[in-house]
Amino acid sequence: MSDATITDLYEVTMALSFLREGMEQPATFSCFVRELPPERGFLVAAGAETVLDYLAGFHVSREDVEVFAEVLQRPSADLAPLLDLRFTGEARLVPEGRVVLANEPLLEITAPLPVAQLVETFVLNQLSHQTALATKCTRCVIAARGHPVVDFSLRRTHGTAVAHQVARLGAMAGFAGTSNVAAAHAEDLPAVGTMAHSYIEAFEDEETAFTAFALCHPGPVTFLVDTYDTASGVAAAARVLAALGRGDGSAIRLDSGDLARLSRRARAMLDNAGLPQVRIIASGGLDEYGVHDLTSSGAPIDAFAVGTRVGVSADAPYLDSAYKLVSYDGRPVMKLSAAKATSPGSKQIFRRPGCLDVIGLADEPAPADSTPLLETMMRGGERSTPRGRLEDAHQRLTEDLAELPATARRIRSPQPVRAMVSHRLSVLTDRVRRRTEREMLAPFRMHA
Amino acid sequence: MSDATITDLYEVTMALSFLREGMEQPATFSCFVRELPPERGFLVAAGAETVLDYLAGFHVSREDVEVFAEVLQRPSADLAPLLDLRFTGEARLVPEGRVVLANEPLLEITAPLPVAQLVETFVLNQLSHQTALATKCTRCVIAARGHPVVDFSLRRTHGTAVAHQVARLGAMAGFAGTSNVAAAHAEDLPAVGTMAHSYIEAFEDEETAFTAFALCHPGPVTFLVDTYDTASGVAAAARVLAALGRGDGSAIRLDSGDLARLSRRARAMLDNAGLPQVRIIASGGLDEYGVHDLTSSGAPIDAFAVGTRVGVSADAPYLDSAYKLVSYDGRPVMKLSAAKATSPGSKQIFRRPGCLDVIGLADEPAPADSTPLLETMMRGGERSTPRGRLEDAHQRLTEDLAELPATARRIRSPQPVRAMVSHRLSVLTDRVRRRTEREMLAPFRMHA
Repeated sequence: MSDATITDLYEVTMALSFLREGMEQPATFSCFVRELPPERGFLVAAGAETVLDYLAGFHVSREDVEVFAEVLQRPSADLAPLLDLRFTGEARLVPEGRVVLANEPLLEITAPLPVAQLVETFVLNQLSHQTALATKCTRCVIAARGHPVVDFSLRRTHGTAVAHQVARLGAMAGFAGTSNVAAAHAEDLPAVGTMAHSYIEAFEDEETAFTAFALCHPGPVTFLVDTYDTASGVAAAARVLAALGRGDGSAIRLDSGDLARLSRRARAMLDNAGLPQVRIIASGGLDEYGVHDLTSSGAPIDAFAVGTRVGVSADAPYLDSAYKLVSYDGRPVMKLSAAKATSPGSKQIFRRPGCLDVIGLADEPAPADSTPLLETMMRGGERSTPRGRLEDAHQRLTEDLAELPATARRIRSPQPVRAMVSHRLSVLTDRVRRRTEREMLAPFRMHA
Repeated sequence: MSDATITDLYEVTMALSFLREGMEQPATFSCFVRELPPERGFLVAAGAETVLDYLAGFHVSREDVEVFAEVLQRPSADLAPLLDLRFTGEARLVPEGRVVLANEPLLEITAPLPVAQLVETFVLNQLSHQTALATKCTRCVIAARGHPVVDFSLRRTHGTAVAHQVARLGAMAGFAGTSNVAAAHAEDLPAVGTMAHSYIEAFEDEETAFTAFALCHPGPVTFLVDTYDTASGVAAAARVLAALGRGDGSAIRLDSGDLARLSRRARAMLDNAGLPQVRIIASGGLDEYGVHDLTSSGAPIDAFAVGTRVGVSADAPYLDSAYKLVSYDGRPVMKLSAAKATSPGSKQIFRRPGCLDVIGLADEPAPADSTPLLETMMRGGERSTPRGRLEDAHQRLTEDLAELPATARRIRSPQPVRAMVSHRLSVLTDRVRRRTEREMLAPFRMHA
């Protein structure tokens, strides 16, 4: 049973019908986000690598056909036309790390209609949630204003597979490390960690706990100081760090209470104890909003650990994304439904300085000073570009953020940048709309 | 590399320190949700089966030790004490499908301290997100008031692994099916599906598309009618169903616009076309709130497909869950941090009729008329109860919901039921708090 069964049932029934009708001409599907969620001024493209791996490996096996037959309660022979379907088409994607805006295609796929349809569910799933999470992580880095941010989300993400993605996307956004051991190992990221309240509680007192930890772990250590009373915890941490001469590179972690107030008090206590080099790490329900408030207040916090709210993108856990047919057999098509109309034809995003983007047709000349964002990464079902490197994605993101208007980067009430639509795309949209209305509504007027 | 590496780094560093200190006495950790999210009157326990599988298979392999050494940048020999650790303890869990309340333990684990600590991250992850999702699904079933609800979430969940869990938990909640082929196959659930707008657009017109679909798929079919104009779509669907004599069991799907208004119009059109048996399915951004509004309005909608918002539990994508040490080496322990204090000792939930629960100590006598909810499912590291069946979980959920006050089941502004705390647990909490304050704060007062 392959990944081809990780699909909505309707992809299978539609593909079967297309095959029965001989509708195997090339179709182009476009995947984009209709509207940004509230409190988002931009999105960060992510998921391209996962999608390319999936497309390259897509193959409907005999076992998959049996699964389809079973769930449809039909004889396997009926599903035989699906056997050995592979993705043999072209895929154009926005590279990971690029800033993207509403209505800009993250991906366009051109392939024989049945296969282009079959891959919808997986493609949409990966691009949507990875883009949502990459955007959330990026906003945390912006809010931290140069202070390190680390990923502590593994315990609260929707399963462990996505936690791995969060660790990777956090690194793309500029996180300094992750607590996730498996992800740190697989993605070659710094692994970071401190200690839990349970660790402290298992010992007779905090000082004994801190000392035991420091003796077990050479080098810098981070002591969690709020298990019983933060001030007493800071004092105990300072005593142990001073006694063992372990202040350099070490830190304390504040995980509850008024972090701004507690960090000032802790800073003063550490400085008074002759430990100005000991850093303060804040955690506990933080995401970009909490980090922003703390950095804005000038709280003496050196680093931020973000978890729960970031790992589920709590304030915007999904995107209003779509995977829409824009062209079939050379004919541009569109959907007219109220509030969900799509625009026809294969597209390109032309980025001009300042992220003043123009969404145009794939085959129209690029506007002056523009860079096309969609890159052909797969041809004839085979990867045509090297696997993207995380450091390159980070570099792209850094460059794009620098171009983005400050109002779009704001943490609260950002002003989304809107892409313009090219003249040619507008003309095509009007033409296809008129044709579609004429063709589709005429029979209704006759019969109704 | 085993699942043991899917962990926060600090579990590893803490476990290593515990081993170094010879702290391998039995520890009891309790996993619970501190506060219910807004708009939740109860939770539905889920994730027990995943956790039991994980614990039964937990084993730190040589390869895992190498991974730990690599991410900690220490010699493998330093990590050797972790090698071959297995979970050899006891696990008590609330069976899946039970209604649970704030502060009620979903799980208690008793095992040698290092291992009980190492399993934290995975256990917390699974119990938290599965319980959040099971609760969201259950609220959809309540809102639907007897109408079938089906799961269309695969395209927008945080990855495909959790989509499988949503399909399973939806079935536990009472969903009638899922669009997720792999999950339907693996969990033996009805697979359901309709067609996409792209299907319609690939044909010359709606009538041709509907006809092709019906000819390809014998039996009941569901036509998506809002690609261009809903009224024209309904008319086309009615013509095709009537012409082919395929009305029985078939349906139309409304996916956009004012679903209450459109469903009334569609119902009238279908009835006038002599197709009173054709059902109306609604979808498009629905979760319990949208379903509730539609059922409350008396809209003639026969079934609801829920997706995006349910698959990510959009309004409450995480739970304020905790995995806390409550006892070590026979000594009850607690955390005192402001607003995050925990209560000590191994516990039991005693359920009395009406979900009037009492959280007490595991070894205290059960109150009259009460049933204990935590069941020992693993002893000596081995499963001591048969694998839970989904139909039994559904049965438990149905029974518990019937006991729950109507105000807790409300979709909007529900009134959460609060569990009471037994006299013995209160006394123990006070005693441990006094002891902890005395022991922990004394050295601070001396030194500060």
